[in-house]
Amino acid sequence: MSRTRLEEFSDGVFAVAITLLALNLAMAGPGHGPLLHQLADHWPSFVAYLISFFTIGIIWVNHHALIGNVAVVDRTLALLNLVLLLFVVLIPVDTATVAKYVTLGGQDARVAVVLYAAAFLGMGLSFGGIFEWTLRTGRLQQPLPERARRAARLRFWTGSILYLAAIAVAFVSPPVALAIIGAVPVYYIFERTPAGSPPADARQQ
Amino acid sequence: MSRTRLEEFSDGVFAVAITLLALNLAMAGPGHGPLLHQLADHWPSFVAYLISFFTIGIIWVNHHALIGNVAVVDRTLALLNLVLLLFVVLIPVDTATVAKYVTLGGQDARVAVVLYAAAFLGMGLSFGGIFEWTLRTGRLQQPLPERARRAARLRFWTGSILYLAAIAVAFVSPPVALAIIGAVPVYYIFERTPAGSPPADARQQ
Amino acid sequence: MSRTRLEEFSDGVFAVAITLLALNLAMAGPGHGPLLHQLADHWPSFVAYLISFFTIGIIWVNHHALIGNVAVVDRTLALLNLVLLLFVVLIPVDTATVAKYVTLGGQDARVAVVLYAAAFLGMGLSFGGIFEWTLRTGRLQQPLPERARRAARLRFWTGSILYLAAIAVAFVSPPVALAIIGAVPVYYIFERTPAGSPPADARQQ
Amino acid sequence: MSRTRLEEFSDGVFAVAITLLALNLAMAGPGHGPLLHQLADHWPSFVAYLISFFTIGIIWVNHHALIGNVAVVDRTLALLNLVLLLFVVLIPVDTATVAKYVTLGGQDARVAVVLYAAAFLGMGLSFGGIFEWTLRTGRLQQPLPERARRAARLRFWTGSILYLAAIAVAFVSPPVALAIIGAVPVYYIFERTPAGSPPADARQQ
Repeated sequence: MSRTRLEEFSDGVFAVAITLLALNLAMAGPGHGPLLHQLADHWPSFVAYLISFFTIGIIWVNHHALIGNVAVVDRTLALLNLVLLLFVVLIPVDTATVAKYVTLGGQDARVAVVLYAAAFLGMGLSFGGIFEWTLRTGRLQQPLPERARRAARLRFWTGSILYLAAIAVAFVSPPVALAIIGAVPVYYIFERTPAGSPPADARQQ
Repeated sequence: MSRTRLEEFSDGVFAVAITLLALNLAMAGPGHGPLLHQLADHWPSFVAYLISFFTIGIIWVNHHALIGNVAVVDRTLALLNLVLLLFVVLIPVDTATVAKYVTLGGQDARVAVVLYAAAFLGMGLSFGGIFEWTLRTGRLQQPLPERARRAARLRFWTGSILYLAAIAVAFVSPPVALAIIGAVPVYYIFERTPAGSPPADARQQ
Repeated sequence: MSRTRLEEFSDGVFAVAITLLALNLAMAGPGHGPLLHQLADHWPSFVAYLISFFTIGIIWVNHHALIGNVAVVDRTLALLNLVLLLFVVLIPVDTATVAKYVTLGGQDARVAVVLYAAAFLGMGLSFGGIFEWTLRTGRLQQPLPERARRAARLRFWTGSILYLAAIAVAFVSPPVALAIIGAVPVYYIFERTPAGSPPADARQQ
Repeated sequence: MSRTRLEEFSDGVFAVAITLLALNLAMAGPGHGPLLHQLADHWPSFVAYLISFFTIGIIWVNHHALIGNVAVVDRTLALLNLVLLLFVVLIPVDTATVAKYVTLGGQDARVAVVLYAAAFLGMGLSFGGIFEWTLRTGRLQQPLPERARRAARLRFWTGSILYLAAIAVAFVSPPVALAIIGAVPVYYIFERTPAGSPPADARQQ
């Protein structure tokens, strides 16, 4: 199979999902109170938009780095990638749900945050699965040395651990759980372990 | 014509269709009962989402394998591919319909499942048409030997036969028909006849 | 500028527009009468869907053939292409409008069909503009001989002439105007003047 | 990282955002008055559609020219590009808001125009950030000479300055502010400083 088509299809899904996120920010329009009040009431939507946008953006950057170093695409990788996209595609809908419920408190807020974290956890676990798949001999263009492998494994599983923590915390405090979820893309933006990156000469492709 | 643009356009349509599927999972929001109850009532949407997502995913994998081995793109292939996409594009809407009606029983449930199976049947028949088109001399980069051709023909038409069976069964039991439709992607995930795949050296493209 | 990015961006817009078309086919859901009646009442949506789908599909095929033979992409071509996409993007919305109004008769049906034909006319005129742009020396990889040029000019302007005719006819009979609009993609499917096609060796790209 | 994937993902986002713009033009349908009146009442939507369409179109052309000349893609560029897309994705929603409120006058019209200009300003500032990033040694395939650099800097920051002006003017006259926003793509269509363009031989890629 062709790595290019796997990347193009995935990029298409990432691009559509990230663009649909903004639809949750639509204002109700005239007859629903002053626009400034509508904007102010909408603040959880803006926070959730920022978190979801950068999380999808970072998973795209990481997907890009990991798949760009893959030597062969087989059906197992195609399937793992589909499972990853299954969760990516859920994010716009779960973002809308969390924005509607997180400020209401009670069980609904807890359920909404757990749903939201669960979509990200599913995304993180499938990404981890893809990473583990790449470690078998011959699957990377430039195999990772043992040391880099450990660093990369830590790097790729950290997100999933934080999402699990967010699910546990959501039962006590949904806003704190949301803050943990929001911290994940910030971690990946500043974390710069170079492991798992494609070789420098791959960029000409 | 360029095979690349056929693939890119098709990948775009597959990516948008697969992402739109999740819009059917949107929660009604506050004022429509506890979120957990909304989720529980929504279970047919989740089942239909999983079936449609993996069916589109698998047809994408198969499309990829088949078109990746094509040597020339003519107007007939472009047109057959358009017919395939005509049905792919119907899937999000028919998924929403089946999720709304399948649990209601009666004639509406039957009609909804028949509509859903018919979209997949149309997709399967057009895919079969593309496959038959590839069998003429000179249309594949690596022609299939007679034996592989028979295996591939069985492989590519099995889905259509199962969708026809689902339509027949829908008149008796819509849920069983839905289970048959859901079994098709599972069959293609585990079925591994290598026929119709592009040659190994095509992956560098 | 890169021809590839012009093609990819255009393919993205074509793919999203063609997929959004199907959203007009969504059923209202339980509580709006038997599903079979909803489907029957929805027939103008299905007819409009087929017309719009194949029209966008054919313009994609023609775009593909024309741009694939272009040697240089300058700002004028990028701008002409944007104008083309401006009209492509209007098609899903105008398709929904024509489906809602064409069977009602009266002035509303006329206005809806004129709007629909006008979007296609705008698309046809911008496509014609792109075609005329390609005729200047040095803009095609394989310049068209004078004879092929005349055939191609006839070919690319026929659509616009038919859309103009549809606008005139709409004032008398909206359904006949719709039939003319629907005849355009059928014409392009069966018309096979090879003019304007990229050279055979361009398909490897 | 691969420049190609950065371009493909960005093109996907631009394509989806530009196509979603047209959804704001949907007619309410039968029962909401004559279609001609609905169209006439909808004129701010058509104006806002044209402005947003050509603004996204021009930013796509400029993005294309700037990124096409980039020699290496690092995480900083990927992140700056994500911030650019964060604002691009907001445009369909802010276009809908401005169309609904600009003719109502009062504070709501001011807020709607400021929101709209702010999305474009965010887009302009991130684009300027990407431009400044490219100026460091070794980041462009063909470095800009000092003179071209000044011209390009003026060129890429002019949009942001006009959007800032539009925000200031919106407090006095929302329609004039809208006219300034609409003038920006017109400026970029006719402005032809060739600075920042990729070398001519990059177009074969």
